[in-house]
Amino acid sequence: MNPSAVDLSADPDAARTVDLNADLGESFGAWTMGDDAALLALVSSANIACGFHAGDPLTLSRTCAEAVARGVSIGAHVSYRDLAGFGRRFVDVDPAELTAEVIYQTAALDGMARAAGGRVRYLKPHGALYNTIVHHEAHARAVVDAVLAHDAALPVLGLPGSVFLRIAADAGLRTVPEAFADRAYTPAGTLVSRREPGAVLHDPQEVADRMLSLVTSGTITNIAGGTLAVAAESICVHGDSPGAVALAQAVRDALTTAGVHIAPFAP
Amino acid sequence: MNPSAVDLSADPDAARTVDLNADLGESFGAWTMGDDAALLALVSSANIACGFHAGDPLTLSRTCAEAVARGVSIGAHVSYRDLAGFGRRFVDVDPAELTAEVIYQTAALDGMARAAGGRVRYLKPHGALYNTIVHHEAHARAVVDAVLAHDAALPVLGLPGSVFLRIAADAGLRTVPEAFADRAYTPAGTLVSRREPGAVLHDPQEVADRMLSLVTSGTITNIAGGTLAVAAESICVHGDSPGAVALAQAVRDALTTAGVHIAPFAP
Amino acid sequence: MNPSAVDLSADPDAARTVDLNADLGESFGAWTMGDDAALLALVSSANIACGFHAGDPLTLSRTCAEAVARGVSIGAHVSYRDLAGFGRRFVDVDPAELTAEVIYQTAALDGMARAAGGRVRYLKPHGALYNTIVHHEAHARAVVDAVLAHDAALPVLGLPGSVFLRIAADAGLRTVPEAFADRAYTPAGTLVSRREPGAVLHDPQEVADRMLSLVTSGTITNIAGGTLAVAAESICVHGDSPGAVALAQAVRDALTTAGVHIAPFAP
Amino acid sequence: MNPSAVDLSADPDAARTVDLNADLGESFGAWTMGDDAALLALVSSANIACGFHAGDPLTLSRTCAEAVARGVSIGAHVSYRDLAGFGRRFVDVDPAELTAEVIYQTAALDGMARAAGGRVRYLKPHGALYNTIVHHEAHARAVVDAVLAHDAALPVLGLPGSVFLRIAADAGLRTVPEAFADRAYTPAGTLVSRREPGAVLHDPQEVADRMLSLVTSGTITNIAGGTLAVAAESICVHGDSPGAVALAQAVRDALTTAGVHIAPFAP
Repeated sequence: MNPSAVDLSADPDAARTVDLNADLGESFGAWTMGDDAALLALVSSANIACGFHAGDPLTLSRTCAEAVARGVSIGAHVSYRDLAGFGRRFVDVDPAELTAEVIYQTAALDGMARAAGGRVRYLKPHGALYNTIVHHEAHARAVVDAVLAHDAALPVLGLPGSVFLRIAADAGLRTVPEAFADRAYTPAGTLVSRREPGAVLHDPQEVADRMLSLVTSGTITNIAGGTLAVAAESICVHGDSPGAVALAQAVRDALTTAGVHIAPFAP
Repeated sequence: MNPSAVDLSADPDAARTVDLNADLGESFGAWTMGDDAALLALVSSANIACGFHAGDPLTLSRTCAEAVARGVSIGAHVSYRDLAGFGRRFVDVDPAELTAEVIYQTAALDGMARAAGGRVRYLKPHGALYNTIVHHEAHARAVVDAVLAHDAALPVLGLPGSVFLRIAADAGLRTVPEAFADRAYTPAGTLVSRREPGAVLHDPQEVADRMLSLVTSGTITNIAGGTLAVAAESICVHGDSPGAVALAQAVRDALTTAGVHIAPFAP
Repeated sequence: MNPSAVDLSADPDAARTVDLNADLGESFGAWTMGDDAALLALVSSANIACGFHAGDPLTLSRTCAEAVARGVSIGAHVSYRDLAGFGRRFVDVDPAELTAEVIYQTAALDGMARAAGGRVRYLKPHGALYNTIVHHEAHARAVVDAVLAHDAALPVLGLPGSVFLRIAADAGLRTVPEAFADRAYTPAGTLVSRREPGAVLHDPQEVADRMLSLVTSGTITNIAGGTLAVAAESICVHGDSPGAVALAQAVRDALTTAGVHIAPFAP
Repeated sequence: MNPSAVDLSADPDAARTVDLNADLGESFGAWTMGDDAALLALVSSANIACGFHAGDPLTLSRTCAEAVARGVSIGAHVSYRDLAGFGRRFVDVDPAELTAEVIYQTAALDGMARAAGGRVRYLKPHGALYNTIVHHEAHARAVVDAVLAHDAALPVLGLPGSVFLRIAADAGLRTVPEAFADRAYTPAGTLVSRREPGAVLHDPQEVADRMLSLVTSGTITNIAGGTLAVAAESICVHGDSPGAVALAQAVRDALTTAGVHIAPFAP
């Protein structure tokens, strides 16, 4: 676990507020992806594609405008340069080049956000980059270097316990750990691999209950049935299918009904 | 002619200063283009590619750093999205999409520039976009809209008399007209088409003499042998061949020897 | 009208057979487009994307395999190089380059088709290229040159009366004129512009009746209410919405119920 | 060592013939790469880019035409999809997708070759793909599957001892091992890493002598000074710098002066 992470269970007031984040702006030209309108009504933070895995400029412009209109914080969802693979494939890019690519993406999206009356408030790596820098030091450092070069005040959203958040914290960045609403956790606190049975949760009620537990008690049940402490300031939900949107809705409803305030971690 | 252009012949002091601009940062990955190092020693303004016709992020990062180190102003050299055609082909893009693309490119380059300690100081359209908006109202307006959305204080560099500079001036933007060092002009003040004989000048001495005349008297000799008034605050030189660099060097030497100060129009 | 086109009204037997064609294979990576499975059950010819406006190689491979399995003829749906614009934007490409691009696309798809046990049986230009070469001589000739270089026995599918089909016929290619199921026609036999009211037809029954009239009598009603002779060997249907698939189904049902045989023009 | 490789030292006649191969067609749009004209006068086999790491269709068309005119065999130089990285970066692509991508590239180049009066005579992986499948079973098998699907009679050119050539041989493909003119070898017969001193040889005379030894005796001196048996039917030379062309020229001159016949392995 990232030592800089807020332990939600320790502070009753903090426990009353959480962020919901989701991936948006992932259409490209004639191709659409996800239900951005539905998600913007549910989340407090939007991880918006920056053009390297998805997101043409017009899509980014419109998504930023809608996020601003709804008071949803805009995050730069930076990726390896891989439109054909939707950023889901590791690319063994030189770290110096990766740093430049992340600055480029973050700045481009910030420009779209500013033109829409907002600005980029945080950075979250996408797909294969996200997964790679859980452990890949050189790429993790390359992303951190990009944030330092672009704006050292920009928080980064990532996996608790990841090399990325550790290096970011060491560099003085604000790190924001997140939990995944629809994923099972091992007793060690890592995500159960998608290749394992039970890795992905589909029942809205179960997911909603877990996330309410996470926010109010700082714990969830791990896949072995034990209690797991999870420090998370944000919950990641998805919107790439009708079921996913329903699940996100269930999480939001359960939290708000219980009096939890849903708000951006970086307004 | 653009009515807002500074008539260099009218003001002896103004006539003593001119900007030299050139295209830079046009390498892409393993492919190199132009002699950026040679040009950065000669010009006062660098039109740096933004990734849509050329310029990977690492190239942009390095080119911006070198420009900042030499006190050369950075301009966003925005283009149609056309890597395969190097931005030299008209693309019949929807104006709203073009606006978003220009904001995206300008903001991305500005991010690279800021990370290098500088910032984008002006915008100049590239290639087919430059040529198209000499007359294409909708695309000209789309580019102007992008500048207004990004930063209404950003000057735009373009062809005197173009629809682009007229619409930009009407919108309140600072417009900077440029002359082309190696191109012949018609009696009407337009460029002689490259398909015509004599359109491109190759003799360094002749080119240097013409540009000295332009700066000190506000006139050059047109292709018919007459005198043509040309209002230009900047002179465009090229660097894509050894001959081009030599020509740019000759222009710079002739100007500085005559006491003309070479300085960015947007420092 | 293309003088080489088969006048379906003149030959009772020919009138009993028609081809149905539709665009397929237009997904790209994580993005899906259209309902390929539904269309493959309805059409006799599949215009399969070749990677320049849509269609990653794995998508092409699978689409070709499904087309072969269903006995649907494979056509190369060649395009300007424009993924971001889905090939819907005119690109002012040099004709020699366009020829090379069309050979490249056709050969690539033919390779995918052969690996699936089939082969490319015809060529149909896509989107902006289709529309451009209705009148643009140089681009039309560039496409014809590509077919001649690749395989002069390959038929080309296009708009009756277009410059493209005329140049193709003059070059000795087999030309196949098509009609659009869901489009209104002017009294002159051209398509009513999409900007005009009534340009696109949405009622399945009306569309089905029109196409049955086309096949059995060689005429349809034009937008002014008059009778128009339309020579077409193939009917283009769409599948990019549930309504479009229903409309294609209605056309197929009306034809087969009336005893019209639906079969590829290039089996 | 690949057991199917011809041991040149064993057969005096075979020893009198060798192939020289080089990478060609690696320009892209406005960017040029390498001295194709110089290399086409020196080599017997041209590894021509297929558009995924380099090579626009017009470049491929012209390079194929020049290769055909000179009697140089055309090979498909297939790559990961990575224009920005020139195919020099590992991409963790799904094997089924890699197979489809290799078929696509091979077929596209074959189409350009056929339009020029030739055809693709062999396949050689490029850059990171070449290096990866020295050991990466799944990607090696994916490439072999592509060759089997495209044309099981197509030879493959690769590194002796690689997983790729082993799987290819097991699948019944003709495998052609190659040596690198300008690279040092370890006592175990592998290439000395470019990160080690002495890995790349620059002296034309030394390189020429080594290659003559390779062809006539089947051995070269390894980096430790010992004698190494190297089975190779082809020698890879480069042309990306004036020095590289001079080195290739020296190899060719040394071989032909010694009576070695330089000819394609797949004419």
